[in-house]
Amino acid sequence: MLRPWELALSIQRDGELPIHLQIAQSIIDEIQRGRLPPGTPLPGTRELAERLAVNRKTAVLAYDELIAQGWLRTQGRRGTFVAPELLANVGAASPHARDETPLVEASYRLYGAPWQQEAPSQPGTIEFSDGVPDSRLIPFDVLGRAYRRALIATARANRLAYGDPRGERPLREALAAMLGMERGLSADADNICVVRGSQMGIYLAARLLVRPGDHVALDALTYPRARETFRAAGAHTLSIAQDEWGMLPDDLERQCRQQRIQAVYLTPHHQFPTTVMMPVERRMRLLALAEQYGFAIVEDDYDHEFHFSHRPMFPLASVDRGGKVLYVGSLSKVLAPGLRVGYIVGSKDLIDRCAAEILLIDRQGNAVTELAVAELMHSGELKRHIRRALRVYEARRQHFAELIESALSPFASFNMPEGGLAFWLKLDPRLDIARLERDARAEGVRIKSSSRFADDGLAVHGLRLGFGNLTPEELTTGIERLRRALLKQSPL
Amino acid sequence: MLRPWELALSIQRDGELPIHLQIAQSIIDEIQRGRLPPGTPLPGTRELAERLAVNRKTAVLAYDELIAQGWLRTQGRRGTFVAPELLANVGAASPHARDETPLVEASYRLYGAPWQQEAPSQPGTIEFSDGVPDSRLIPFDVLGRAYRRALIATARANRLAYGDPRGERPLREALAAMLGMERGLSADADNICVVRGSQMGIYLAARLLVRPGDHVALDALTYPRARETFRAAGAHTLSIAQDEWGMLPDDLERQCRQQRIQAVYLTPHHQFPTTVMMPVERRMRLLALAEQYGFAIVEDDYDHEFHFSHRPMFPLASVDRGGKVLYVGSLSKVLAPGLRVGYIVGSKDLIDRCAAEILLIDRQGNAVTELAVAELMHSGELKRHIRRALRVYEARRQHFAELIESALSPFASFNMPEGGLAFWLKLDPRLDIARLERDARAEGVRIKSSSRFADDGLAVHGLRLGFGNLTPEELTTGIERLRRALLKQSPL
Repeated sequence: MLRPWELALSIQRDGELPIHLQIAQSIIDEIQRGRLPPGTPLPGTRELAERLAVNRKTAVLAYDELIAQGWLRTQGRRGTFVAPELLANVGAASPHARDETPLVEASYRLYGAPWQQEAPSQPGTIEFSDGVPDSRLIPFDVLGRAYRRALIATARANRLAYGDPRGERPLREALAAMLGMERGLSADADNICVVRGSQMGIYLAARLLVRPGDHVALDALTYPRARETFRAAGAHTLSIAQDEWGMLPDDLERQCRQQRIQAVYLTPHHQFPTTVMMPVERRMRLLALAEQYGFAIVEDDYDHEFHFSHRPMFPLASVDRGGKVLYVGSLSKVLAPGLRVGYIVGSKDLIDRCAAEILLIDRQGNAVTELAVAELMHSGELKRHIRRALRVYEARRQHFAELIESALSPFASFNMPEGGLAFWLKLDPRLDIARLERDARAEGVRIKSSSRFADDGLAVHGLRLGFGNLTPEELTTGIERLRRALLKQSPL
Repeated sequence: MLRPWELALSIQRDGELPIHLQIAQSIIDEIQRGRLPPGTPLPGTRELAERLAVNRKTAVLAYDELIAQGWLRTQGRRGTFVAPELLANVGAASPHARDETPLVEASYRLYGAPWQQEAPSQPGTIEFSDGVPDSRLIPFDVLGRAYRRALIATARANRLAYGDPRGERPLREALAAMLGMERGLSADADNICVVRGSQMGIYLAARLLVRPGDHVALDALTYPRARETFRAAGAHTLSIAQDEWGMLPDDLERQCRQQRIQAVYLTPHHQFPTTVMMPVERRMRLLALAEQYGFAIVEDDYDHEFHFSHRPMFPLASVDRGGKVLYVGSLSKVLAPGLRVGYIVGSKDLIDRCAAEILLIDRQGNAVTELAVAELMHSGELKRHIRRALRVYEARRQHFAELIESALSPFASFNMPEGGLAFWLKLDPRLDIARLERDARAEGVRIKSSSRFADDGLAVHGLRLGFGNLTPEELTTGIERLRRALLKQSPL
């Protein structure tokens, strides 16, 4: 027979549920624990209400819920009973109570490493990114209207149902035109697959090019998440030696002779993290090696637009003869990372394979965002925004260079980056960088850990400091604090 | 020496490029083909302009481009030359011309099946979906404003940089509250990971639960893309026998005795494709089996909100004692698939593993969409919309039932679906369904192929017809056309 104090007990527990659902829930508990066997008569709603000191209507609602769900059965005058057909299963479930178990225990095998959440910074901390843009600069008013128009137009036309996994056609066409006009890439809409930021482009490249055991080569210092992504696909990653102009083709060739290399991941336009642009002769050599050794090149051109010196150099993909380059681009840096719009450029065959993968991964992208961005490209707003943003970033870059020059020169040297939203500081090798990161934090400035750039165990004597998302004042404060952190390791 | 007619030739090719970039491109071609060796003097810009019948400024721009990129070197008075440092690499690339090769040849190994694009329908074709909503019903005006506010707020606060891979906190909190109030799920924001539609939820479940060679069981008739997703993760998929109430626990237990089953994928609320709701006693039995044989349950509750009879039954996850259920939900059906907002509910440990996967797959979701949806949930707009939409869908469901009853009764029988946006028609087994699909198309109505629901080779004598996204008029026309297609297979 029902013991009301247990109900009362369990009702205290679950603050989120409305009271009648809490009652229903706790009765389900009793049934599952076998303490209310099938056929057990339940107290009338008035009695239950009194026992639990709740409104009678609440008790009625609770029983209705349980009857609707099939837990209870009402037999008119005779009253309400635990449903007899539950007989077979009662008590089969484990006896411990709900609140003792998490919603989903990892009692079955669970794969993948858990995510480590970064400890939040103190308020007022200056966060040096690894080169993110300042979304305060985006034309949010224009974009907002474009969003609204895209939403209304698509919704009215019932076009917000499932669409093309390669992305909304207007955006693919706008991208094809832009790539042709500005980057010398001859691609049409069928050569383009819209993805959720360049990270998804890298992920798809890994899925399409790599099988467990394959070898993939990356710069010795590279974008850490790219290395992780190829490893997660089962690849053995190799490191290509670098000098101040980026990767050394001779070292790549040496490694090609040692084993079959399936793919090479590179950021030729603004090397990540060192910011240098790959010289044309190395580009030629790289393409020749791709021909000779049959590897694919994944060209990650994550912030092509932000180039300060001369017009940006054409991507490898635009001078690729052998069809070896898979080109990954992004609009996240140009607009805002939170919008998640990137793209892959490749042969129709490759793009169709991307589409097949996307159908399983996330089906398609966000149609409203894609159409809003397409409108900004067609209207020329995007180009105007890029020009405006470039002027701001160029000023910040100049200011940042002077700050570093004056405040950090004893510890760090740098070359002015030709493009991108970050500087690469070469640090005095006697500095303990792990300690620097801790000291910086204590001073109220946060820097991205350099060890992430290198393959396991390789020491890094450099620092990538993003300047794009910070105002001149924030940059000044940040460098001041970094200087104080560095001084703790004097005398140098 | 440069042969101008070749330049002229290649310049015809590339309609997308501005003329000066076409010239630059074709000179790069000549250099790469070894027909303009390093050190070769180029004609002056005036001469080049005359030869090519272009404006001289265009010729100057072309040379500037090539000099900037390092292909050419200018030596003041002496003129312009092919850069000598290219020596090492000239001619290394394959000799065939640009236009003969696709942008990216699959000359390296390419994995994954290419995507087959569906042939587009004739205009005026009635498309029966497998149960998508009508995005014409969504409160696009309210949502549009919410989008704009979210965009402006986040952009101004520079909050559109990279965020939490689990999704924007306000959305996770709104989801936790909703799941507690309406589905008896006690989850907080740390038990929830926002994903891009329920498909991504299934994809992540497969990544986290399955290793190549594991066994995963699904209903004999199920959501085809779920089966594909688990297979793509390397799982052997097993089929669980079904009766008119859904999967048979006895058959699942029989298979559990034969081999270790790692996970079971189910749609208990509205079985896909047959629409039936799993009875409570089978739910109990299923959970008991999960305890006993240690398999995980992936509960795909893709359209929980659209339930017509009584209040929807609590999900399995809400009565899960042993922590075996990984719950996948979606807002795509409630709002619009094109918005791509879904979620996974599980233990913090599982959610943290999801986050780690997401960092490699697409980094994070679309912050603007997530915040806009969160606002609709907080303001109650979402609930109001669901109530409005339910009334519309219920009327269409009633209308559709009468249509089928009157027009298709000789060929098909059905049970009124208690929920969801589709009917399941049991068809006369003598009907050739493949032929029916062809005949239907000829009549101007398109139906989703039933063979996709079944595991390879299993014959299906049913048809899933979505009614939600079609107006009463469209439903009437569609069923009349379907009737005509069916009549072609008379006499039955």
